[in-house]
Amino acid sequence: MHMICHSGWTEFAVLKEKALQKITAPPGTTELDFLNTLGLTGMTAYFGLHDVGELKAGETLLVSGAAGAVGSLVCQLGKRAGAKVVALAGSDDKCAWLENELGVDVALNYKRSTFEEEFKNAVRYLDVFFDNVGGEILDLALKRLNQNARIALCGAISAYNSPTPRGLENYQNLISQRAKIQGFIVFDYASQFPKAIADLSAGIADGTIKRKFHIVEGLENAPKALLMLFSGDNTGKLVVQVSNARSSERPKL
Amino acid sequence: MHMICHSGWTEFAVLKEKALQKITAPPGTTELDFLNTLGLTGMTAYFGLHDVGELKAGETLLVSGAAGAVGSLVCQLGKRAGAKVVALAGSDDKCAWLENELGVDVALNYKRSTFEEEFKNAVRYLDVFFDNVGGEILDLALKRLNQNARIALCGAISAYNSPTPRGLENYQNLISQRAKIQGFIVFDYASQFPKAIADLSAGIADGTIKRKFHIVEGLENAPKALLMLFSGDNTGKLVVQVSNARSSERPKL
Repeated sequence: MHMICHSGWTEFAVLKEKALQKITAPPGTTELDFLNTLGLTGMTAYFGLHDVGELKAGETLLVSGAAGAVGSLVCQLGKRAGAKVVALAGSDDKCAWLENELGVDVALNYKRSTFEEEFKNAVRYLDVFFDNVGGEILDLALKRLNQNARIALCGAISAYNSPTPRGLENYQNLISQRAKIQGFIVFDYASQFPKAIADLSAGIADGTIKRKFHIVEGLENAPKALLMLFSGDNTGKLVVQVSNARSSERPKL
Repeated sequence: MHMICHSGWTEFAVLKEKALQKITAPPGTTELDFLNTLGLTGMTAYFGLHDVGELKAGETLLVSGAAGAVGSLVCQLGKRAGAKVVALAGSDDKCAWLENELGVDVALNYKRSTFEEEFKNAVRYLDVFFDNVGGEILDLALKRLNQNARIALCGAISAYNSPTPRGLENYQNLISQRAKIQGFIVFDYASQFPKAIADLSAGIADGTIKRKFHIVEGLENAPKALLMLFSGDNTGKLVVQVSNARSSERPKL
Protein backbone atom coordinates (compact mmCIF):
# COMPACT_ATOMS: atom_id res chain seq x y z
CA MET A 1 0.00 0.00 0.00
CA HIS A 2 1.30 3.45 -0.89
CA MET A 3 0.49 6.71 0.81
CA ILE A 4 1.15 10.37 0.05
CA CYS A 5 1.70 12.82 2.86
CA HIS A 6 3.40 16.13 3.54
CA SER A 7 5.66 15.16 6.39
CA GLY A 8 8.68 17.35 5.77
CA TRP A 9 12.10 15.74 5.36
CA THR A 10 12.03 12.74 7.62
CA GLU A 11 12.44 8.99 7.52
CA PHE A 12 9.49 8.34 9.81
CA ALA A 13 6.50 10.43 10.73
CA VAL A 14 3.48 10.09 12.99
CA LEU A 15 0.49 11.60 11.22
CA LYS A 16 -3.26 11.79 11.62
CA GLU A 17 -5.20 9.56 9.29
CA LYS A 18 -6.69 12.46 7.36
CA ALA A 19 -3.20 13.77 6.55
CA LEU A 20 -2.58 10.62 4.53
CA GLN A 21 -3.79 9.99 1.02
CA LYS A 22 -3.87 6.40 -0.17
CA ILE A 23 -2.84 6.10 -3.79
CA THR A 24 -3.57 3.47 -6.37
CA ALA A 25 -1.61 3.94 -9.56
CA PRO A 26 -3.85 3.80 -12.64
CA PRO A 27 -2.85 1.24 -15.30
CA GLY A 28 0.40 2.18 -17.02
CA THR A 29 1.53 4.52 -14.24
CA THR A 30 3.58 3.97 -11.09
CA GLU A 31 3.28 5.26 -7.56
CA LEU A 32 6.22 7.56 -8.22
CA ASP A 33 4.05 9.42 -10.73
CA PHE A 34 2.04 10.71 -7.78
CA LEU A 35 5.08 12.75 -6.79
CA ASN A 36 5.19 14.20 -10.30
CA THR A 37 2.75 14.04 -13.21
CA LEU A 38 -0.18 12.88 -11.09
CA GLY A 39 0.77 15.00 -8.07
CA LEU A 40 1.05 18.73 -7.47
CA THR A 41 3.68 19.03 -10.20
CA GLY A 42 1.27 17.73 -12.80
CA MET A 43 -1.67 19.69 -11.45
CA THR A 44 0.40 22.89 -11.60
CA ALA A 45 1.31 22.30 -15.23
CA TYR A 46 -2.21 21.25 -16.20
CA PHE A 47 -4.22 24.06 -14.64
CA GLY A 48 -1.62 26.75 -15.24
CA LEU A 49 -1.55 25.96 -18.93
CA HIS A 50 -5.20 25.20 -19.57
CA ASP A 51 -7.02 27.36 -17.04
CA VAL A 52 -4.75 30.40 -16.63
CA GLY A 53 -3.05 30.22 -20.04
CA GLU A 54 -6.14 29.06 -21.94
CA LEU A 55 -3.88 27.64 -24.64
CA LYS A 56 -5.53 26.95 -27.99
CA ALA A 57 -4.41 24.92 -31.01
CA GLY A 58 -2.22 26.87 -33.42
CA GLU A 59 -0.98 29.30 -30.79
CA THR A 60 2.64 29.86 -29.78
CA LEU A 61 3.55 28.66 -26.29
CA LEU A 62 6.74 29.72 -24.52
CA VAL A 63 7.91 27.69 -21.51
CA SER A 64 10.73 28.68 -19.16
CA GLY A 65 12.38 26.21 -16.81
CA ALA A 66 11.31 23.79 -19.52
CA ALA A 67 13.55 20.91 -18.45
CA GLY A 68 12.17 20.94 -14.93
CA ALA A 69 9.36 18.76 -13.67
CA VAL A 70 6.57 21.26 -14.27
CA GLY A 71 8.08 22.78 -17.41
CA SER A 72 8.71 19.49 -19.19
CA LEU A 73 5.10 18.49 -18.67
CA VAL A 74 3.85 21.88 -19.84
CA CYS A 75 5.86 21.44 -23.05
CA GLN A 76 4.23 18.09 -23.75
CA LEU A 77 0.75 19.33 -22.90
CA GLY A 78 1.41 22.22 -25.27
CA LYS A 79 2.27 19.90 -28.16
CA ARG A 80 -0.71 17.72 -27.26
CA ALA A 81 -2.94 20.82 -27.53
CA GLY A 82 -1.62 21.60 -31.00
CA ALA A 83 0.55 24.60 -30.14
CA LYS A 84 3.96 25.62 -31.40
CA VAL A 85 6.20 25.15 -28.35
CA VAL A 86 9.40 27.12 -27.66
CA ALA A 87 11.23 25.77 -24.61
CA LEU A 88 13.91 27.55 -22.58
CA ALA A 89 16.48 25.67 -20.51
CA GLY A 90 19.98 26.20 -19.13
CA SER A 91 22.15 23.67 -20.99
CA ASP A 92 22.55 22.21 -24.46
CA ASP A 93 21.91 18.72 -23.06
CA LYS A 94 18.58 19.79 -21.64
CA CYS A 95 17.69 21.43 -24.95
CA ALA A 96 18.56 18.27 -26.87
CA TRP A 97 16.32 16.24 -24.54
CA LEU A 98 13.47 18.71 -24.99
CA GLU A 99 13.71 18.66 -28.77
CA ASN A 100 14.52 14.99 -29.34
CA GLU A 101 12.57 13.25 -26.60
CA LEU A 102 9.73 15.62 -25.78
CA GLY A 103 9.20 16.96 -29.29
CA VAL A 104 9.17 20.71 -28.68
CA ASP A 105 9.53 22.80 -31.82
CA VAL A 106 12.57 24.71 -30.60
CA ALA A 107 14.56 24.54 -27.37
CA LEU A 108 16.93 27.40 -26.55
CA ASN A 109 19.78 27.55 -24.05
CA TYR A 110 19.33 30.89 -22.29
CA LYS A 111 22.96 30.89 -21.19
CA ARG A 112 24.29 31.24 -24.74
CA SER A 113 25.57 34.67 -25.73
CA THR A 114 23.36 34.63 -28.82
CA PHE A 115 20.23 33.85 -26.81
CA GLU A 116 18.36 37.13 -27.23
CA GLU A 117 18.56 37.02 -31.00
CA GLU A 118 17.67 33.32 -31.11
CA PHE A 119 14.78 33.97 -28.77
CA LYS A 120 13.33 36.68 -30.97
CA ASN A 121 13.63 34.56 -34.11
CA ALA A 122 12.19 31.42 -32.54
CA VAL A 123 9.31 32.97 -30.63
CA ARG A 124 8.28 35.74 -33.02
CA TYR A 125 5.21 36.66 -30.95
CA LEU A 126 3.87 34.51 -28.15
CA ASP A 127 0.28 33.79 -27.16
CA VAL A 128 0.94 31.98 -23.90
CA PHE A 129 4.00 32.09 -21.66
CA PHE A 130 4.17 29.54 -18.87
CA ASP A 131 6.82 31.13 -16.68
CA ASN A 132 8.73 29.40 -13.92
CA VAL A 133 11.65 31.79 -13.63
CA GLY A 134 10.60 35.47 -13.70
CA GLY A 135 13.25 38.19 -13.93
CA GLU A 136 15.15 38.86 -17.14
CA ILE A 137 13.40 36.20 -19.18
CA LEU A 138 9.98 37.43 -18.17
CA ASP A 139 11.02 40.96 -19.07
CA LEU A 140 12.25 39.74 -22.44
CA ALA A 141 8.99 37.90 -23.07
CA LEU A 142 7.07 41.12 -22.40
CA LYS A 143 8.64 42.45 -25.60
CA ARG A 144 7.26 39.59 -27.70
CA LEU A 145 3.56 39.55 -26.87
CA ASN A 146 0.85 38.85 -29.37
CA GLN A 147 -2.45 40.60 -28.83
CA ASN A 148 -4.38 39.04 -25.95
CA ALA A 149 -1.32 37.13 -24.75
CA ARG A 150 -1.56 35.35 -21.39
CA ILE A 151 1.40 34.95 -19.08
CA ALA A 152 0.77 32.26 -16.47
CA LEU A 153 3.13 33.16 -13.64
CA CYS A 154 3.91 29.88 -11.94
CA GLY A 155 7.20 30.73 -10.28
CA ALA A 156 10.04 33.23 -10.27
CA ILE A 157 12.95 31.06 -9.23
CA SER A 158 15.46 33.58 -10.60
CA ALA A 159 14.24 36.08 -8.01
CA TYR A 160 13.61 33.98 -4.90
CA ASN A 161 17.09 34.41 -3.47
CA SER A 162 18.18 37.58 -5.19
CA PRO A 163 18.91 40.57 -2.96
CA THR A 164 18.30 42.84 -5.97
CA PRO A 165 15.66 41.12 -8.10
CA ARG A 166 15.47 42.35 -11.66
CA GLY A 167 12.43 44.59 -12.12
CA LEU A 168 10.11 44.25 -15.10
CA GLU A 169 10.61 47.25 -17.36
CA ASN A 170 8.54 46.21 -20.35
CA TYR A 171 5.17 45.96 -18.62
CA GLN A 172 3.80 48.82 -20.74
CA ASN A 173 3.44 46.35 -23.60
CA LEU A 174 0.67 44.68 -21.64
CA ILE A 175 -1.48 47.70 -22.48
CA SER A 176 -1.01 47.89 -26.24
CA GLN A 177 -1.23 44.10 -26.55
CA ARG A 178 -4.26 43.73 -24.23
CA ALA A 179 -2.21 41.10 -22.44
CA LYS A 180 -2.10 39.84 -18.88
CA ILE A 181 0.25 38.42 -16.29
CA GLN A 182 -1.62 36.17 -13.90
CA GLY A 183 -0.32 34.34 -10.87
CA PHE A 184 -1.89 31.14 -9.64
CA ILE A 185 -1.67 28.59 -6.86
CA VAL A 186 -2.42 24.98 -7.65
CA PHE A 187 -4.40 24.29 -4.48
CA ASP A 188 -7.21 26.50 -5.78
CA TYR A 189 -7.96 23.80 -8.35
CA ALA A 190 -8.19 20.91 -5.87
CA SER A 191 -11.79 20.10 -6.74
CA GLN A 192 -10.76 19.53 -10.36
CA PHE A 193 -7.71 17.34 -9.65
CA PRO A 194 -9.49 14.04 -10.42
CA LYS A 195 -10.31 15.18 -13.96
CA ALA A 196 -6.68 16.16 -14.56
CA ILE A 197 -5.32 12.94 -13.03
CA ALA A 198 -7.54 10.88 -15.34
CA ASP A 199 -6.40 12.85 -18.39
CA LEU A 200 -2.71 12.73 -17.47
CA SER A 201 -2.81 9.02 -16.56
CA ALA A 202 -4.15 8.26 -20.01
CA GLY A 203 -1.28 10.25 -21.52
CA ILE A 204 1.31 8.33 -19.50
CA ALA A 205 -0.28 5.00 -20.35
CA ASP A 206 -0.38 5.64 -24.10
CA GLY A 207 3.16 7.04 -24.10
CA THR A 208 2.29 10.57 -25.21
CA ILE A 209 3.42 11.96 -21.85
CA LYS A 210 7.01 11.18 -20.94
CA ARG A 211 8.67 11.94 -17.66
CA LYS A 212 12.10 11.85 -16.21
CA PHE A 213 13.09 11.49 -12.58
CA HIS A 214 16.26 12.78 -11.06
CA ILE A 215 16.59 10.62 -7.96
CA VAL A 216 18.98 11.54 -5.18
CA GLU A 217 19.49 8.77 -2.62
CA GLY A 218 19.57 9.29 1.11
CA LEU A 219 17.91 11.81 3.37
CA GLU A 220 21.36 13.19 4.24
CA ASN A 221 21.60 14.47 0.64
CA ALA A 222 18.33 16.40 0.77
CA PRO A 223 19.94 19.83 1.38
CA LYS A 224 22.27 19.34 -1.60
CA ALA A 225 19.36 18.18 -3.72
CA LEU A 226 17.32 21.27 -2.86
CA LEU A 227 20.09 23.53 -4.11
CA MET A 228 20.03 21.77 -7.48
CA LEU A 229 16.69 23.48 -8.12
CA PHE A 230 18.48 26.83 -7.99
CA SER A 231 21.64 25.85 -9.84
CA GLY A 232 19.63 24.08 -12.54
CA ASP A 233 21.54 20.81 -12.10
CA ASN A 234 18.48 18.59 -12.29
CA THR A 235 16.61 17.50 -15.39
CA GLY A 236 13.09 16.33 -14.68
CA LYS A 237 11.47 15.72 -11.34
CA LEU A 238 13.91 15.89 -8.46
CA VAL A 239 13.13 13.25 -5.83
CA VAL A 240 15.00 12.41 -2.64
CA GLN A 241 14.68 8.70 -1.92
CA VAL A 242 14.69 8.19 1.81
CA SER A 243 14.58 4.43 1.97
CA ASN A 244 14.36 1.32 -0.14
CA ALA A 245 12.71 -0.56 2.67
CA ARG A 246 9.30 -2.05 2.05
CA SER A 247 6.73 -1.10 4.62
CA SER A 248 6.75 -4.62 6.09
CA GLU A 249 10.43 -4.23 6.93
CA ARG A 250 9.97 -0.94 8.74
CA PRO A 251 9.87 -0.77 12.51
CA LYS A 252 6.49 -0.58 14.16
CA LEU A 253 6.01 2.83 15.72
CA MET B 1 -25.65 69.92 -35.33
CA HIS B 2 -22.58 68.51 -33.57
CA MET B 3 -20.10 66.05 -34.93
CA ILE B 4 -17.23 64.06 -33.44
CA CYS B 5 -14.17 63.28 -35.52
CA HIS B 6 -10.50 62.49 -35.09
CA SER B 7 -8.97 65.23 -37.18
CA GLY B 8 -5.78 65.95 -35.30
CA TRP B 9 -5.10 69.47 -34.05
CA THR B 10 -6.65 71.72 -36.64
CA GLU B 11 -9.24 74.45 -36.98
CA PHE B 12 -10.72 73.03 -40.17
CA ALA B 13 -10.61 69.60 -41.69
CA VAL B 14 -11.90 67.91 -44.83
CA LEU B 15 -13.10 64.44 -43.90
CA LYS B 16 -15.02 61.59 -45.45
CA GLU B 17 -18.57 61.24 -44.24
CA LYS B 18 -17.90 57.94 -42.48
CA ALA B 19 -15.15 59.57 -40.39
CA LEU B 20 -17.78 61.79 -38.79
CA GLN B 21 -20.09 60.77 -35.98
CA LYS B 22 -23.17 62.87 -35.45
CA ILE B 23 -23.97 63.29 -31.79
CA THR B 24 -27.18 64.07 -30.01
CA ALA B 25 -26.71 64.74 -26.33
CA PRO B 26 -29.12 62.69 -24.19
CA PRO B 27 -31.30 64.72 -21.77
CA GLY B 28 -29.25 66.26 -18.96
CA THR B 29 -25.95 66.00 -20.85
CA THR B 30 -24.13 68.35 -23.21
CA GLU B 31 -22.22 67.82 -26.42
CA LEU B 32 -18.99 68.40 -24.51
CA ASP B 33 -19.70 65.20 -22.58
CA PHE B 34 -18.96 63.32 -25.79
CA LEU B 35 -15.34 64.39 -25.41
CA ASN B 36 -15.33 63.00 -21.89
CA THR B 37 -17.81 60.84 -19.98
CA LEU B 38 -19.72 59.75 -23.08
CA GLY B 39 -16.60 59.53 -25.27
CA LEU B 40 -13.47 57.40 -25.18
CA THR B 41 -12.59 58.74 -21.73
CA GLY B 42 -15.81 57.41 -20.28
CA MET B 43 -15.64 54.15 -22.20
CA THR B 44 -12.10 53.58 -20.90
CA ALA B 45 -13.18 54.09 -17.31
CA TYR B 46 -16.32 52.01 -17.71
CA PHE B 47 -14.91 48.91 -19.38
CA GLY B 48 -11.59 49.01 -17.57
CA LEU B 49 -13.33 49.02 -14.22
CA HIS B 50 -16.23 46.71 -14.92
CA ASP B 51 -14.87 44.32 -17.54
CA VAL B 52 -11.15 44.09 -16.73
CA GLY B 53 -11.39 44.96 -13.03
CA GLU B 54 -14.69 43.13 -12.43
CA LEU B 55 -15.28 45.33 -9.39
CA LYS B 56 -17.84 44.05 -6.90
CA ALA B 57 -19.67 45.75 -4.03
CA GLY B 58 -17.72 45.74 -0.77
CA GLU B 59 -14.33 45.48 -2.45
CA THR B 60 -11.47 47.96 -2.14
CA LEU B 61 -10.70 49.93 -5.28
CA LEU B 62 -7.48 51.89 -5.75
CA VAL B 63 -7.33 54.54 -8.49
CA SER B 64 -4.17 56.34 -9.62
CA GLY B 65 -4.28 59.54 -11.65
CA ALA B 66 -7.58 59.91 -9.84
CA ALA B 67 -8.08 63.62 -10.55
CA GLY B 68 -7.72 63.09 -14.29
CA ALA B 69 -10.58 62.60 -16.69
CA VAL B 70 -10.55 58.81 -16.66
CA GLY B 71 -9.55 58.48 -13.01
CA SER B 72 -12.20 60.82 -11.64
CA LEU B 73 -14.89 58.87 -13.46
CA VAL B 74 -13.48 55.54 -12.24
CA CYS B 75 -13.67 56.84 -8.66
CA GLN B 76 -17.33 57.71 -9.06
CA LEU B 77 -18.18 54.45 -10.78
CA GLY B 78 -16.42 52.71 -7.91
CA LYS B 79 -18.58 54.42 -5.29
CA ARG B 80 -21.65 53.75 -7.43
CA ALA B 81 -20.73 50.04 -7.43
CA GLY B 82 -20.50 49.98 -3.63
CA ALA B 83 -16.73 49.77 -3.29
CA LYS B 84 -14.38 51.45 -0.84
CA VAL B 85 -12.42 53.88 -3.03
CA VAL B 86 -8.87 55.07 -2.35
CA ALA B 87 -7.81 57.79 -4.81
CA LEU B 88 -4.26 58.92 -5.56
CA ALA B 89 -3.48 62.37 -6.95
CA GLY B 90 -0.60 64.84 -7.03
CA SER B 91 -1.81 67.82 -4.98
CA ASP B 92 -3.78 68.54 -1.83
CA ASP B 93 -6.30 70.55 -3.88
CA LYS B 94 -7.00 67.59 -6.11
CA CYS B 95 -7.37 65.36 -3.07
CA ALA B 96 -9.83 67.78 -1.47
CA TRP B 97 -11.89 67.78 -4.68
CA LEU B 98 -11.88 63.99 -4.81
CA GLU B 99 -12.98 63.63 -1.20
CA ASN B 100 -15.43 66.53 -0.97
CA GLU B 101 -16.97 66.63 -4.42
CA LEU B 102 -16.61 63.10 -5.74
CA GLY B 103 -17.06 61.30 -2.43
CA VAL B 104 -14.10 58.93 -2.45
CA ASP B 105 -13.35 57.37 0.92
CA VAL B 106 -9.75 58.56 1.06
CA ALA B 107 -7.66 60.64 -1.34
CA LEU B 108 -3.89 60.66 -0.90
CA ASN B 109 -1.30 63.06 -2.30
CA TYR B 110 1.48 60.82 -3.59
CA LYS B 111 3.97 63.69 -3.43
CA ARG B 112 3.87 63.91 0.36
CA SER B 113 6.84 62.48 2.23
CA THR B 114 4.52 60.40 4.39
CA PHE B 115 2.75 58.89 1.39
CA GLU B 116 3.95 55.29 1.67
CA GLU B 117 2.77 54.94 5.24
CA GLU B 118 -0.54 56.67 4.50
CA PHE B 119 -0.99 54.44 1.47
CA LYS B 120 -0.54 51.28 3.47
CA ASN B 121 -2.95 52.40 6.17
CA ALA B 122 -5.61 53.61 3.76
CA VAL B 123 -5.52 50.75 1.28
CA ARG B 124 -4.84 47.82 3.61
CA TYR B 125 -5.30 45.25 0.82
CA LEU B 126 -6.77 46.08 -2.56
CA ASP B 127 -9.09 44.03 -4.75
CA VAL B 128 -9.00 46.20 -7.86
CA PHE B 129 -6.40 48.74 -8.95
CA PHE B 130 -7.29 50.94 -11.89
CA ASP B 131 -3.84 52.21 -12.84
CA ASN B 132 -3.12 55.18 -15.06
CA VAL B 133 0.46 55.84 -14.02
CA GLY B 134 2.55 52.65 -13.72
CA GLY B 135 6.06 52.80 -12.24
CA GLU B 136 6.63 53.30 -8.53
CA ILE B 137 2.97 53.42 -7.60
CA LEU B 138 2.21 50.23 -9.46
CA ASP B 139 5.15 48.56 -7.75
CA LEU B 140 3.88 49.77 -4.38
CA ALA B 141 0.39 48.45 -5.14
CA LEU B 142 1.86 45.02 -5.89
CA LYS B 143 2.75 44.84 -2.19
CA ARG B 144 -0.86 45.35 -1.11
CA LEU B 145 -2.80 42.76 -3.09
CA ASN B 146 -5.71 40.83 -1.73
CA GLN B 147 -6.16 37.31 -3.04
CA ASN B 148 -7.52 37.33 -6.60
CA ALA B 149 -6.77 41.04 -7.01
CA ARG B 150 -7.14 42.52 -10.50
CA ILE B 151 -4.95 45.33 -11.77
CA ALA B 152 -6.48 47.02 -14.82
CA LEU B 153 -3.52 48.61 -16.56
CA CYS B 154 -4.95 51.58 -18.40
CA GLY B 155 -1.85 53.73 -18.74
CA ALA B 156 1.67 54.21 -17.47
CA ILE B 157 2.10 57.94 -17.81
CA SER B 158 4.99 57.97 -15.34
CA ALA B 159 6.98 55.83 -17.77
CA TYR B 160 6.07 57.20 -21.20
CA ASN B 161 8.88 59.73 -21.33
CA SER B 162 11.32 58.21 -18.89
CA PRO B 163 14.70 57.13 -20.29
CA THR B 164 15.05 54.74 -17.33
CA PRO B 165 11.54 53.58 -16.45
CA ARG B 166 11.19 52.10 -13.00
CA GLY B 167 10.92 48.30 -13.22
CA LEU B 168 8.34 46.34 -11.25
CA GLU B 169 10.13 44.42 -8.53
CA ASN B 170 7.19 43.10 -6.56
CA TYR B 171 5.58 41.03 -9.30
CA GLN B 172 6.22 37.83 -7.34
CA ASN B 173 3.25 38.73 -5.15
CA LEU B 174 1.02 38.05 -8.14
CA ILE B 175 1.73 34.36 -7.58
CA SER B 176 0.93 34.02 -3.89
CA GLN B 177 -2.12 36.28 -4.25
CA ARG B 178 -3.40 34.63 -7.46
CA ALA B 179 -3.58 38.13 -8.86
CA LYS B 180 -3.31 39.58 -12.34
CA ILE B 181 -2.15 42.64 -14.22
CA GLN B 182 -4.14 43.08 -17.39
CA GLY B 183 -3.76 45.70 -20.08
CA PHE B 184 -6.66 46.79 -22.23
CA ILE B 185 -7.54 49.05 -25.14
CA VAL B 186 -10.91 50.72 -25.18
CA PHE B 187 -11.56 50.18 -28.90
CA ASP B 188 -11.99 46.45 -28.26
CA TYR B 189 -15.27 47.27 -26.51
CA ALA B 190 -16.75 49.36 -29.33
CA SER B 191 -19.73 47.08 -29.81
CA GLN B 192 -20.72 47.66 -26.18
CA PHE B 193 -20.35 51.46 -26.19
CA PRO B 194 -24.09 52.17 -26.54
CA LYS B 195 -24.86 50.29 -23.32
CA ALA B 196 -22.20 52.26 -21.45
CA ILE B 197 -23.31 55.59 -22.92
CA ALA B 198 -26.87 54.94 -21.79
CA ASP B 199 -25.73 54.04 -18.28
CA LEU B 200 -23.37 56.99 -17.96
CA SER B 201 -25.89 59.48 -19.41
CA ALA B 202 -28.36 58.45 -16.74
CA GLY B 203 -25.69 59.06 -14.10
CA ILE B 204 -24.93 62.53 -15.44
CA ALA B 205 -28.62 63.40 -15.67
CA ASP B 206 -29.42 62.35 -12.10
CA GLY B 207 -26.31 64.06 -10.74
CA THR B 208 -24.56 60.95 -9.44
CA ILE B 209 -21.77 61.39 -12.00
CA LYS B 210 -19.95 64.70 -11.82
CA ARG B 211 -17.35 65.93 -14.23
CA LYS B 212 -14.94 68.76 -14.49
CA PHE B 213 -13.46 70.28 -17.62
CA HIS B 214 -10.16 72.02 -17.81
CA ILE B 215 -10.56 74.15 -20.92
CA VAL B 216 -7.59 75.75 -22.62
CA GLU B 217 -8.54 78.31 -25.26
CA GLY B 218 -6.89 78.60 -28.64
CA LEU B 219 -5.27 76.07 -30.92
CA GLU B 220 -1.95 77.87 -30.41
CA ASN B 221 -2.01 76.67 -26.78
CA ALA B 222 -2.45 73.00 -27.66
CA PRO B 223 1.25 72.07 -27.18
CA LYS B 224 1.28 73.66 -23.73
CA ALA B 225 -1.96 71.93 -22.86
CA LEU B 226 -0.58 68.53 -23.86
CA LEU B 227 2.31 68.93 -21.45
CA MET B 228 -0.11 69.53 -18.59
CA LEU B 229 -1.00 65.82 -18.80
CA PHE B 230 2.57 64.99 -17.85
CA SER B 231 3.11 67.71 -15.24
CA GLY B 232 -0.25 66.95 -13.63
CA ASP B 233 -1.43 70.56 -13.92
CA ASN B 234 -4.93 69.70 -15.07
CA THR B 235 -7.83 68.55 -12.95
CA GLY B 236 -10.54 66.81 -14.91
CA LYS B 237 -10.86 66.51 -18.65
CA LEU B 238 -8.39 68.65 -20.54
CA VAL B 239 -9.95 70.19 -23.64
CA VAL B 240 -8.46 72.61 -26.15
CA GLN B 241 -11.18 74.89 -27.47
CA VAL B 242 -10.35 75.80 -31.04
CA SER B 243 -13.19 78.18 -31.79
CA ASN B 244 -16.31 79.70 -30.34
CA ALA B 245 -17.79 80.11 -33.77
CA ARG B 246 -21.09 78.44 -34.47
CA SER B 247 -21.07 76.30 -37.55
CA SER B 248 -23.23 78.80 -39.45
CA GLU B 249 -20.53 81.44 -39.01
CA ARG B 250 -17.76 79.25 -40.34
CA PRO B 251 -16.48 79.63 -43.87
CA LYS B 252 -17.76 77.23 -46.47
CA LEU B 253 -14.98 74.91 -47.56
